[in-house]
Amino acid sequence: MTGESNGIGDLPESVHPVLTHIERNFGASLQRYLDFLRIPSISTDLAFENEVERAAIWLRDYLDALGFSVTVHETPRHPIVVAHHASGLTDSPHLLYYGHYDVQPVDPLEQWTSPPFEPALVEGPHGPRVVARGAVDDKGQVMTFLEALKAWKEVHGQFPAEITLLLEGEEECGSHSLPGFLDRHAGELRKADIVLVTDTNAWDIDTAAITYRLRGLAYFEITIQGPSHDLHSGLYGGAAVNPINALTEILGGLHNGGGRVQIPGFYDDVLEPSANEKAALDALAFDDKAFLSEIGLQGTFGETGRTVPERLWTRPTCDINGIWGGYTGPGAKTVIASRASAKLSCRLVPNQDPAKIAASLEAYLRARAPSGCRVSVENFGGSPGVIVPIEGPFMQAARAGLADIFGRPAALVGSGGSIPVVGLMKEKIGRESILVGFGLADDRIHSPNEKFELKCLKNGILSHAAILGRFGQLRKSENLTG
Amino acid sequence: MTGESNGIGDLPESVHPVLTHIERNFGASLQRYLDFLRIPSISTDLAFENEVERAAIWLRDYLDALGFSVTVHETPRHPIVVAHHASGLTDSPHLLYYGHYDVQPVDPLEQWTSPPFEPALVEGPHGPRVVARGAVDDKGQVMTFLEALKAWKEVHGQFPAEITLLLEGEEECGSHSLPGFLDRHAGELRKADIVLVTDTNAWDIDTAAITYRLRGLAYFEITIQGPSHDLHSGLYGGAAVNPINALTEILGGLHNGGGRVQIPGFYDDVLEPSANEKAALDALAFDDKAFLSEIGLQGTFGETGRTVPERLWTRPTCDINGIWGGYTGPGAKTVIASRASAKLSCRLVPNQDPAKIAASLEAYLRARAPSGCRVSVENFGGSPGVIVPIEGPFMQAARAGLADIFGRPAALVGSGGSIPVVGLMKEKIGRESILVGFGLADDRIHSPNEKFELKCLKNGILSHAAILGRFGQLRKSENLTG
Repeated sequence: MTGESNGIGDLPESVHPVLTHIERNFGASLQRYLDFLRIPSISTDLAFENEVERAAIWLRDYLDALGFSVTVHETPRHPIVVAHHASGLTDSPHLLYYGHYDVQPVDPLEQWTSPPFEPALVEGPHGPRVVARGAVDDKGQVMTFLEALKAWKEVHGQFPAEITLLLEGEEECGSHSLPGFLDRHAGELRKADIVLVTDTNAWDIDTAAITYRLRGLAYFEITIQGPSHDLHSGLYGGAAVNPINALTEILGGLHNGGGRVQIPGFYDDVLEPSANEKAALDALAFDDKAFLSEIGLQGTFGETGRTVPERLWTRPTCDINGIWGGYTGPGAKTVIASRASAKLSCRLVPNQDPAKIAASLEAYLRARAPSGCRVSVENFGGSPGVIVPIEGPFMQAARAGLADIFGRPAALVGSGGSIPVVGLMKEKIGRESILVGFGLADDRIHSPNEKFELKCLKNGILSHAAILGRFGQLRKSENLTG
Repeated sequence: MTGESNGIGDLPESVHPVLTHIERNFGASLQRYLDFLRIPSISTDLAFENEVERAAIWLRDYLDALGFSVTVHETPRHPIVVAHHASGLTDSPHLLYYGHYDVQPVDPLEQWTSPPFEPALVEGPHGPRVVARGAVDDKGQVMTFLEALKAWKEVHGQFPAEITLLLEGEEECGSHSLPGFLDRHAGELRKADIVLVTDTNAWDIDTAAITYRLRGLAYFEITIQGPSHDLHSGLYGGAAVNPINALTEILGGLHNGGGRVQIPGFYDDVLEPSANEKAALDALAFDDKAFLSEIGLQGTFGETGRTVPERLWTRPTCDINGIWGGYTGPGAKTVIASRASAKLSCRLVPNQDPAKIAASLEAYLRARAPSGCRVSVENFGGSPGVIVPIEGPFMQAARAGLADIFGRPAALVGSGGSIPVVGLMKEKIGRESILVGFGLADDRIHSPNEKFELKCLKNGILSHAAILGRFGQLRKSENLTG
């Protein structure tokens, strides 16, 4: 079970009985996990408000039983659960675990092979897996550190570090309550030395991963208004501006033939990966073919001269997420619509400023609007890209803990998505995050038949136990947050 | 009332008592017209099938009472009413009047100021007008020749020409039954020397118009399919093709900066207007400003180096009529859609072949689809552009008859729209059409509060009486259909 030496010292002896305890009691862990999955805590749909509350209470009771001091904080929408447990030690580090207990909606329901909130154990190529909404995102991931903490407490009666947990119920609907909450509780939360975020993927079923790069987001809705009302395309076509044509002309010019975004200044602030980082990305041997075939594509796509992981993790994008205008029913209608709209978003990478990108995009759109057309842009806000330091004592300890369990080094990877909490923790309480998670790319998060491999669940619990043991060897007096 | 001399002889004496009769009995004509408008003969909506039938019966009874031999021909959808009346003369020409008795749907109903099938008499800047669905398109226009024929019959007991009427009930839903009907009845209908189509506009309330040019149409639905399912824009953006982006790139390149369509060969077969025709178009002194301000636009638009009437009547177009794909609800959803679609149509001008244009468009689209995307094109069919000879004895007689009533020459104009029956009559029975109609540009056809000026209705009836009188002077033996 424990891996080879990792160069920063061996796994502490105290971890071994915890790992054994986890293995022996995995059946009971699984039952608790299935109980948690049975609560339909869909945060975006107000009809499930009581269920979200019930999931918060479930967590409160779980942590209360472990001796945590738990508070379920009410917010304008869904509760934030915060729990503390002292270590009883002097000079031990203080860890802040983050996860979310809310889940995505389940539609289209008819595509599920079993009811989304009646978790099903199904045999797969890696052994049994659990199919349910939230199986991995993020209830399954949350269970990896909860069960590790529970095992540690049951074996040792105490923790080797100060522990705080922050579990939110709005991650799937925008985390609107979180920034204000972090502001109000910054004094308390700043006592933590590091944040552990468990909401990302492993590299593959046999290889752990630490995500050190996340893209940010800037999201817009654009409308082009032309004539005062819809026109007959015969009586006006050729002499009256067509807002749909105009919209395609403007948006169709967003990329050049080489896949580069043509908004002036778009790449000005992009932080290029260092030669070392590039070499590390290349060393990952990303499987382009598997990536593409999973989504039904043959050809690669994107910026020339960049590998797929570079495109996904280190390069900003400009994708149209929706477009609409004119007649969209069956058959033919010869209309020139008076307006056309699109949703458009940019994934941002470190050092790009969402506000600056928004201003450049607006200027780009307005400059290209044909005479007689009005362009309006609604800005849905955004978040910057994030890069976390891949060195430092916590990162070394986390990497070592993962290697202890998986028997091989964890991959250092990026993610093309955004996890706003990472930027928020840095901004609001001044703390870095370590993103360690145990999902797989084929887990179908946000889609029907979301699943989590039991092998991933167990390795996650074991890994969090090993990481906790490793963290427990660090000393706060060594300026851990430097 | 009667105009100046027009160079081809005076208005026959026989017309004068008919005109007087029309003036004296206009109140009764108005009542019959309002009766006709009260029948909600919406052809595209099957719920109104019986009402369409009722309008056909109303016409049968009307024409039967005038001594016509009437047949209501059943078709797969709505009846075609055909009526014949012999002149009792030898060597008189044979006229075929075309109109349609079906109307457009009424939605959005809430925008009507009075119920669409309860015609309202409303005072306007040109005196009273009738507000109702079908007020002008095409029931009001049909009443202009029906009431002229009725007056002529009541005054003279016979007609100065052989008369056939063909009144269809599917014009607003595609005239699907008409081509086959014309094929089956070609022998009978070919006896006519000329077709009179009354479904177009006057130049203005004081100036008649003959439309000698119509654009054709080619209509398509295009879909671009990329990934096998919708993707998370964070996890895939930048490395997976985005079908909406691809669609905007392809469609955004349809025009160059000068407004010219970029489909290869698009203009190859376009028949340029002669120097004479161009000079005549310029002489019309088209009011660009009024045209634009009516539709809420300031700037002109279209192909450089072409006037607005040239753009509208003599130049082909490529307009996107609808576009859709991805997320179009409120707020933000970070999705890369698996597919995107558009409706697109080309207005065609004489000599362009709809099939050839369809092939060029398909080739253009497929050549520009990014690797990994599938393009599918559905062709909704089309019709070629039409130009009718502006010389010849019938055209001269029609122009003279309009000048008799309006006291000034009729404008010779084009229309950017399509009236497929004109091409069909040429193709199926080998006869030219003369398009003389009495609508105004602000009549709001196909829109809420469609209206027809009573002044236009009366001038239309008078004009058809004068034109009939002028036609009655022609002799069939003079090879009228040459």
